[in-house]
Amino acid sequence: MSDDEVATIHETAIRYLADEGMRVLDEEARDLYAQGGSVDGEMVRIDPDRIREALATAPSTFDVSAPVPHRSISMGGKSLNLAPVAGPPFVTDRISGRRAGTLEDQKNFLRMTQHFDVMSTICPSVEPDDIPINERHLLSTQASLTLTDKIPWVFCRGRDRVRDAFDMIKIRNGIESDEEFAAEARCWSVVNMNSPRQLDTVMARGIIDFASMGQMLIITPFTLAGAMAPITLAGALLLQHMEALAGITLSQIVNPGAPVVYGAFTSNVDMKSGSPAFGTPEAQKAAFASGQLARHIGLPLRSSGSSAANGPDAQGGMETMMNTYGAFLGGANIIMHTAGWQEGGLSASYEKFVIDMEMCQMIAEMCHPVVVDEATLGVEAITDVGPGGHFFGTSHTMERYETAFYDPLLFTRWTYEQWSEEGSPSTGDRATALWQKILADYKAPPLDDAIAAELDDFVQRRISEGGAPVDG
Amino acid sequence: MSDDEVATIHETAIRYLADEGMRVLDEEARDLYAQGGSVDGEMVRIDPDRIREALATAPSTFDVSAPVPHRSISMGGKSLNLAPVAGPPFVTDRISGRRAGTLEDQKNFLRMTQHFDVMSTICPSVEPDDIPINERHLLSTQASLTLTDKIPWVFCRGRDRVRDAFDMIKIRNGIESDEEFAAEARCWSVVNMNSPRQLDTVMARGIIDFASMGQMLIITPFTLAGAMAPITLAGALLLQHMEALAGITLSQIVNPGAPVVYGAFTSNVDMKSGSPAFGTPEAQKAAFASGQLARHIGLPLRSSGSSAANGPDAQGGMETMMNTYGAFLGGANIIMHTAGWQEGGLSASYEKFVIDMEMCQMIAEMCHPVVVDEATLGVEAITDVGPGGHFFGTSHTMERYETAFYDPLLFTRWTYEQWSEEGSPSTGDRATALWQKILADYKAPPLDDAIAAELDDFVQRRISEGGAPVDG
Repeated sequence: MSDDEVATIHETAIRYLADEGMRVLDEEARDLYAQGGSVDGEMVRIDPDRIREALATAPSTFDVSAPVPHRSISMGGKSLNLAPVAGPPFVTDRISGRRAGTLEDQKNFLRMTQHFDVMSTICPSVEPDDIPINERHLLSTQASLTLTDKIPWVFCRGRDRVRDAFDMIKIRNGIESDEEFAAEARCWSVVNMNSPRQLDTVMARGIIDFASMGQMLIITPFTLAGAMAPITLAGALLLQHMEALAGITLSQIVNPGAPVVYGAFTSNVDMKSGSPAFGTPEAQKAAFASGQLARHIGLPLRSSGSSAANGPDAQGGMETMMNTYGAFLGGANIIMHTAGWQEGGLSASYEKFVIDMEMCQMIAEMCHPVVVDEATLGVEAITDVGPGGHFFGTSHTMERYETAFYDPLLFTRWTYEQWSEEGSPSTGDRATALWQKILADYKAPPLDDAIAAELDDFVQRRISEGGAPVDG
Repeated sequence: MSDDEVATIHETAIRYLADEGMRVLDEEARDLYAQGGSVDGEMVRIDPDRIREALATAPSTFDVSAPVPHRSISMGGKSLNLAPVAGPPFVTDRISGRRAGTLEDQKNFLRMTQHFDVMSTICPSVEPDDIPINERHLLSTQASLTLTDKIPWVFCRGRDRVRDAFDMIKIRNGIESDEEFAAEARCWSVVNMNSPRQLDTVMARGIIDFASMGQMLIITPFTLAGAMAPITLAGALLLQHMEALAGITLSQIVNPGAPVVYGAFTSNVDMKSGSPAFGTPEAQKAAFASGQLARHIGLPLRSSGSSAANGPDAQGGMETMMNTYGAFLGGANIIMHTAGWQEGGLSASYEKFVIDMEMCQMIAEMCHPVVVDEATLGVEAITDVGPGGHFFGTSHTMERYETAFYDPLLFTRWTYEQWSEEGSPSTGDRATALWQKILADYKAPPLDDAIAAELDDFVQRRISEGGAPVDG
């Protein structure tokens, strides 16, 4: 889009929020919005100046502190962080097939996420369907805080559950007070707007609770063009932008300076079936345009890799690569769903997870610039080898061959004959052996016994108290 | 690379060609080089001024005329042209397995290339191993000129063979004289340098023959880092650049203004096995850097999609997408091997061809900008739908739903249940049915009976004369 087109979408969104506004289902949120606009029943209209003020106080860059310092990350600017799939109800692998996710599956994805340095943060890669819903957040948070030392994720699924997770992160990080906890972002979540133009109670409270405690929140409108958003990309982007602005403004009314991220997830539906169509060229274009909109308002950007494929095959590979690459090009500071996403997000795949790790590692490798200096130009080596020779045995090669090139995790450079001797395995076939090996070799990060015990005590106590309801 | 680094590689290459030069195995080519440098035995050194003069006369943009006007293409500037795999000895599909290519296979790939508008030009997608080598160019050229109406390809494999192909293109295009033929580029080829720093007789004559007849030639050094080029990317790029400059200069000595393209193919070998490693992050980085070098000298750029995968699976999908996308980002004006390439280029795959067509079509779709205007912003539709509603039935949607989004060729948006009912086919499985359907539905482009007969007479006459040798 041209700069003018970007400004048109931004100004149209601001005007629309002032004239027509959003429906907000939560009274507390409406009262907060009333400080910067008007409320009529459930409809909230927001003053343009209040939105501009929010964009001025929302930080363009901030840090998120992990339980161990070397796992901390930056958001905004040129930072790029990759996160695995979040939230599918199903899990699939080539040994046990497709089934509802369990806590053990969630733990396995946490173990694999811990294993790969290219993942900046964990995500709850699959829902633990075997755990009662009122206890789920406790066991999931305990798993993420003990099996990994990366930035934890907290679901915004109710006030008491968020509070429990914050308390557990305080234990893991050795933090005593809420004030100390709130001094830095130490976890993150995503709030989805109920597109079009609606913010429900659970999501509204997520914004309020995360903002008030200074934790990183991504505001992501769920704008599938043709279904919850206009069929035209410009219209879907306009809706995405106004909904994001509404959420960002609420966060800044609650706590000016709260760390908030512009979430972009605009894709389209398949107009033949009405199914969500992930991994499309339209999603790509929306990712580029969202980058322009996020930069226009000076906020960090979240984007996604995605695919509609049902198996870890060529479609899955191409769609995921295209969209992850496109998210990267769009300037995303955090790309979600970069590993394990399958079936349009309904299933987390063990095989896809490790295949996608190859992709993530290759993209990370690509970010290292070409070094041009006397040593790398190798003029002397070129002369020594002479016309028609080869560089295999030269000292210039021998000094560098062990680390010169990206060493693949799973992808092969076999000849056809080697591949045939191995039984002609597909990438998916080879992936099964790899994830099993990673889980077999997994080692938990160091964790003080007292902290582990305190976390366990907390979980047991809260379970004995009945856990926490979803809408509490 | 920084502008300084680009200039360093360029200036180092020019100085190296003046000081150390290239080995040129062809006497005619050496005599030509002597006009702009010095010859010592087989070693040719080129004056920096002669290189700069060549870069001044080589056109930065030019057109290539197809047999029918709407198939003509532009090279240089912002033009982007996609071409299918060229040259593998083997062919593979899921019905007949892997085997040596035949003329019928080559014809099938020509039919599929004709079918897809996203392919700008044909390529000889597989070697017809069943045809004697002295007749192969005749039957291949006849096939390309009768089964398609796209820009034909001519292999530089001997002077008489190139001459035969030019004569056949004259017949197909209704051109009487060599002068008229040479007035525009009407076909293309690739000359590979015998890296490092060597130009053999067949390739040298290809440069001379294409330049003298004003036909489009891509000069591509075969610089695999760690084998035929330094293990460092800067070194491999330096070698690529100097070899390309040497070839470009020869073309301009022969015919100032001859249409020539900077060919980039730098990748790396797998240092564990010594095998070529295609589809790597290093190939990506080299593609970006090659774009910088081509723009620095103001020439059109050729790049490639590539993969080392042995089957049409996730590795094939990811590597091909990453490298084709990267070639596009690098500013390539023509991307070769974008469809059907498998096994590092040893095999042309029917399934991979149609899978890659989905990729090419998605990349083409992505190039259409987002339209931002009153109609596409859809403010009225957003208001009409209201908070929490949906856009499925709105007039804004109904007016656009048939053409709003890219309609996939092969990729599905099936639910898991639909996919299971279909037998859980992989993309590769579905691809088999698609290429069979395309071949069954294929219709040859219109061709005047007299021209077809004249082509056939030419081929039969030349075969009766013994065809043409490879090194003639």
